[in-house]
Amino acid sequence: MIESYNTPTLKRELGNYISGYVDGEGCFSVSFSIRPKLKIGWEVKPSFAVAQNFDRREVLDLMIEYFGCGHIRKNTADKTLKYEIRSLDELLEKVIPHFHSFPLLSSKQKDFLLFKEVCKRMKELKHLEAQGFQEIVEIAHKMNTSGKRKYSQTMLLASFQMKI
Amino acid sequence: MIESYNTPTLKRELGNYISGYVDGEGCFSVSFSIRPKLKIGWEVKPSFAVAQNFDRREVLDLMIEYFGCGHIRKNTADKTLKYEIRSLDELLEKVIPHFHSFPLLSSKQKDFLLFKEVCKRMKELKHLEAQGFQEIVEIAHKMNTSGKRKYSQTMLLASFQMKI
Repeated sequence: MIESYNTPTLKRELGNYISGYVDGEGCFSVSFSIRPKLKIGWEVKPSFAVAQNFDRREVLDLMIEYFGCGHIRKNTADKTLKYEIRSLDELLEKVIPHFHSFPLLSSKQKDFLLFKEVCKRMKELKHLEAQGFQEIVEIAHKMNTSGKRKYSQTMLLASFQMKI
Repeated sequence: MIESYNTPTLKRELGNYISGYVDGEGCFSVSFSIRPKLKIGWEVKPSFAVAQNFDRREVLDLMIEYFGCGHIRKNTADKTLKYEIRSLDELLEKVIPHFHSFPLLSSKQKDFLLFKEVCKRMKELKHLEAQGFQEIVEIAHKMNTSGKRKYSQTMLLASFQMKI
């Protein structure tokens, strides 16, 4: 499908279309998992994901081609598919530059900018140090404020303080 | 906001973004209401709608500006906003030409083409005649096949046949 977008103009058109789609259906998130073996006790997991119903996977396939990375997983419970990119390098090299060139037009842009900040700090390994981890927790909790979180900011910072 | 899209290139970029957004969040539908006073007994109601949560109405406001028509309604029950265009003339003159210029890339494109066919036939007043109404019912039931319908195709055609 993507071979037909073979001119710079058509590529820009597809880029804008994808940003529009993601502005509706996509999500930038930073989650945390307990990892006792890590010095800081927590793993920081950034993710870019787009969900869709089983019967409409074409755009997710298109995104795999467009970004050249990521996977589609089935959630049989709610009959949805989820296209997801979790690799920090792929997020930094492929996803973030795309949304720089083709910005989101809704308030989700704010989440994207915070997400970018977390990824940038992770590349500098800030998430492995006390101060850096604290700041990342604070940035992450400014994102997707209407969604639910497994661990509150207070819980993360308290449990982390217990370890140092 | 839209004044900043003041060159043909930027307008095309916005057009592609909007088609991407609609491919995720939009819906083309044709519904039917009982209208005993109409000769055919039924009103045919085409609609283009995009839903969004209360806290993310920017793109719906942008669409009002872009299409130059339509309204946003609040659904306090599920905390969503719905941008909707129901006027046949506005659908024919503003919505349908947009999606000709900036096609959807998912299977929703099939729904759009069926929707366009219904609107075109309504402009020719086919929905007010027996044969034309039957054909519109058949086309409408090929759309959004995963969604729920208030009246089945069988029920619509049977009740309509009772009247002629």
